[in-house]
Amino acid sequence: MCPNLRKNRGNEMNERLAKQMGFIIEIDKVKSIFRRTVLSHTSRLENDAEHAWHISLMAVILYEYANEKDIDLLKVIKMLLVHDLVEIDAGDVAIYDLKARKNNKENEERAAMRIFGMLPDDQRDEMLSLWDEFEARVTPESRFAEAMDRIEPIMQNYLTGGHTWKELNASYEMVHSTNQHLREGSEDLWEYIEGLLNVSFEKGFFK
Amino acid sequence: MCPNLRKNRGNEMNERLAKQMGFIIEIDKVKSIFRRTVLSHTSRLENDAEHAWHISLMAVILYEYANEKDIDLLKVIKMLLVHDLVEIDAGDVAIYDLKARKNNKENEERAAMRIFGMLPDDQRDEMLSLWDEFEARVTPESRFAEAMDRIEPIMQNYLTGGHTWKELNASYEMVHSTNQHLREGSEDLWEYIEGLLNVSFEKGFFK
Repeated sequence: MCPNLRKNRGNEMNERLAKQMGFIIEIDKVKSIFRRTVLSHTSRLENDAEHAWHISLMAVILYEYANEKDIDLLKVIKMLLVHDLVEIDAGDVAIYDLKARKNNKENEERAAMRIFGMLPDDQRDEMLSLWDEFEARVTPESRFAEAMDRIEPIMQNYLTGGHTWKELNASYEMVHSTNQHLREGSEDLWEYIEGLLNVSFEKGFFK
Repeated sequence: MCPNLRKNRGNEMNERLAKQMGFIIEIDKVKSIFRRTVLSHTSRLENDAEHAWHISLMAVILYEYANEKDIDLLKVIKMLLVHDLVEIDAGDVAIYDLKARKNNKENEERAAMRIFGMLPDDQRDEMLSLWDEFEARVTPESRFAEAMDRIEPIMQNYLTGGHTWKELNASYEMVHSTNQHLREGSEDLWEYIEGLLNVSFEKGFFK
């Protein structure tokens, strides 16, 4: 989309930057992928770019609570910045819709190949590897990143009287069991979130 | 806003997490601060959270072009994630409105004290220091971060036929001179952007 304009450089560097800029332009589309959750201070749906920003900054503020010490915060943030880019092609699927999520896995993998494939090979490989690591949730970094990804919508639901939980007919048990693995990233934060879920139950925020 | 629920921890840790969560909830508001630029694939105005996400990921992809090698990428990203939070109180001011920008400095400083002041003291100090460093544009990291902050709206204008440049009556000379300091962060990327500005001029994207 952007012309190759760097006249004073070799072709190799020009091609590399053109690919990088093509990727940077493509990912603008994630700002139009809307999630199920609404912002906590207004009633508008949140989009994937806003969500990725918020949880990246949450990681900066909260990483002292990661179960494993000395996690690589830069890696956590890189994962969070890119984790939802596949939704440009595959769309957003609610975490409580388990069947749709399973079917969506193949679409997401195809999307990852296309979108990260716009980058130069070395960066494509790094991004695919980060995305795979995030999805597999085995490393300390991906477990902590996953905790950030889960905590933000729970906070949003708590602050909006259970807006999305009600809309999706989610019960306390469903939300509790779907999210409790976030303790693998942070026992401290899970304890906090479990407390929020209990208060939410008492207040009637679930179906 | 969120209750203090971590029953099994000492008061000190509870208070710390309550402050951090208060900050995390507060910054949700940045998703409703709209910029002057429109998204490149649609005509909607961009908000500060989307912008911060995009330029943080741009830094990940483009940091090989920083003038100074071995810059601290994590620091660059932290700066970019928080650089516009002051606009929750102080609002967005167009970069081509030099008078308004000068008057706005005091508002932004007050906003930084209030918003970062919601955090525990050590994190408040870190965030204030990052914000000051970004604003002063003296270190290699802040200069590269600034380049990211400037490149995104130029790309958006290029891709939308100069949408905001026309709206603000910005001339080629004004845009060129206001942005050329981004070469302090990356000569390579400035060369690319200067090329885009030249093509934009030929295509009539300026007033």
